[in-house]
Amino acid sequence: MTKIAVLGAGSWGSVLASMLADNGHAVELYGNRQEVADEINQKHSNSRYMKDWSMNSKVHATLDLAEALAGSDIILFVLPTSAIRSVAKQVKAILDQSGSKPYLVSATKGIEPGSKKLVTQIFRDELYPDNSDLMIVLSGPSHAENVAQKDLTAITLASTSLDNAAKMQRIFSNEYVRFYTSNDPVGVQVGGAVKNVIAIAAGMLAGMGYGDNAKAALMTRGLAEITRLGVAFGGQPWTFSGLSGIGDLIVTCTSVNSRNWRAGYQLGQGQKLADVLANMGQVVEGATTVKAVHEICDKYSLDMPISEAIYHVLYEGADIKSEIKLMMNRQMGPEIRI
Amino acid sequence: MTKIAVLGAGSWGSVLASMLADNGHAVELYGNRQEVADEINQKHSNSRYMKDWSMNSKVHATLDLAEALAGSDIILFVLPTSAIRSVAKQVKAILDQSGSKPYLVSATKGIEPGSKKLVTQIFRDELYPDNSDLMIVLSGPSHAENVAQKDLTAITLASTSLDNAAKMQRIFSNEYVRFYTSNDPVGVQVGGAVKNVIAIAAGMLAGMGYGDNAKAALMTRGLAEITRLGVAFGGQPWTFSGLSGIGDLIVTCTSVNSRNWRAGYQLGQGQKLADVLANMGQVVEGATTVKAVHEICDKYSLDMPISEAIYHVLYEGADIKSEIKLMMNRQMGPEIRI
Repeated sequence: MTKIAVLGAGSWGSVLASMLADNGHAVELYGNRQEVADEINQKHSNSRYMKDWSMNSKVHATLDLAEALAGSDIILFVLPTSAIRSVAKQVKAILDQSGSKPYLVSATKGIEPGSKKLVTQIFRDELYPDNSDLMIVLSGPSHAENVAQKDLTAITLASTSLDNAAKMQRIFSNEYVRFYTSNDPVGVQVGGAVKNVIAIAAGMLAGMGYGDNAKAALMTRGLAEITRLGVAFGGQPWTFSGLSGIGDLIVTCTSVNSRNWRAGYQLGQGQKLADVLANMGQVVEGATTVKAVHEICDKYSLDMPISEAIYHVLYEGADIKSEIKLMMNRQMGPEIRI
Repeated sequence: MTKIAVLGAGSWGSVLASMLADNGHAVELYGNRQEVADEINQKHSNSRYMKDWSMNSKVHATLDLAEALAGSDIILFVLPTSAIRSVAKQVKAILDQSGSKPYLVSATKGIEPGSKKLVTQIFRDELYPDNSDLMIVLSGPSHAENVAQKDLTAITLASTSLDNAAKMQRIFSNEYVRFYTSNDPVGVQVGGAVKNVIAIAAGMLAGMGYGDNAKAALMTRGLAEITRLGVAFGGQPWTFSGLSGIGDLIVTCTSVNSRNWRAGYQLGQGQKLADVLANMGQVVEGATTVKAVHEICDKYSLDMPISEAIYHVLYEGADIKSEIKLMMNRQMGPEIRI
């Protein structure tokens, strides 16, 4: 039996915890809200984040990080990007006392503002400077709601060590979620982070009444710019044609379950950013990620017209229709620029 | 003014003809139904294929192929794949009399059953054995209904001659449709053809009640197998990340306007193939293409589990649920196989 500490008791963390318990592992779920932990332990549900859902009754929730980590073989991070660094510091202090070195799996999607770093880079800064091979990234088209219903899902597990990715594959897989391995954790993380920006754009188009052709064009050209950024970060271009790239982009841009898409939709219908974020209740990662993307575009001189347009609309007061007109009137050229 | 003969007066042919007339070109539209041609010429509409739509009044429709071709600089083929070879033979006989060599643009998506050939290969067989550079493929996420409404659309134009693709780009582009060039007509055609098979599969999953994760996984793994087939045909792998690959796959698998998706949906709900095809009224290209794909898999020893499952369900009486179970239980492995 594998002991797994899941950090983050939101919707995705709770569903992954329950799935891993279904697979027969011992799961501790760490959160920061007493009422959520109490409900999980007493009623085996998490009604704040998942309506009408019963989780595996063997999942134990705690607000005590040391209790969650005690004896763990794997630490699964399912926190907002903004919380990763501070929690990683606390994890480090606890692991230093026990001397153990569990696998670090990240299911968090985002780029840290300011540092412009990916989660595995934060893990290197704060936890394992010399053990990238113990870090595995979990990413793919995986709305928590679908996995909770045991609907079919496919997800990528990426590590610089394919062996360790394959170990996680055996632990995580079951009859309703199929995992694939990858040796490109950088590419997988860039895809998972930046797709949220494109999802805001897709929501905006829908909110303004544009149709299916426009959505597909936006997603395809969005993938082209995600790939450009990912390659600049050191990722492999073909990763972006996979589950963590186009797969996740598809589910995020075409499902009403996506917070980023819903935020974009409301913006497209004319609502103000502050109101949209206030009403969402949960984190809209894309609205933060686009700031990091904007800085990265400057630093690497990358051409990312869709992400830049979203930045202009969200933070510089630009008009959505004018930004679309600018994009349609860009110089005509070849589809692939290598 | 460019003179363009559009062959095929269905929904996409009529909309492209109207768009090209909007762009200021002289357009002859060739069809094989007298009542459709009469309605186009007298009422400037095509209610059989496009409800509530007015086309450009300068489009002239005819049932006389020689009249349509007279003086044309470009012949745009928008016919079912099964009709391409016989019409190409007739076109050859007419062009031989005039001695002219217009550009051949194909907006037809499919693989010819039996010969397993792409449209440009049929053009070489029947029309221009030595002038591949005069052939341009038009493909991308472009539901006729959206272009008819002048909604935003992006499409690829591919030719072995990038110069000729760029010439078409200038003739076809306007403020609501943006064209990109490509030098990979083979890859562009494979993407456009095989996506119809994956769309049937996506419709089946939806018809059976599966959710967004399953749809995104199917489309991503579907793209992986389309790419495998395309590379075996001589296409470039990155073409499949573009508008004619994933872009077209997205619009076909996520829009209610897609006939292939609708056919799959009805099959997923338990209807019989013969009834579904009889009720559709228009061609379901994927149901034909999957036969060619099945033969190609054999010939090249390609691994295309989704397309093969669709073939088994459509033509060998296999049960959809059993096929899905087989797919979920395939040996676990890496996502990318190079």
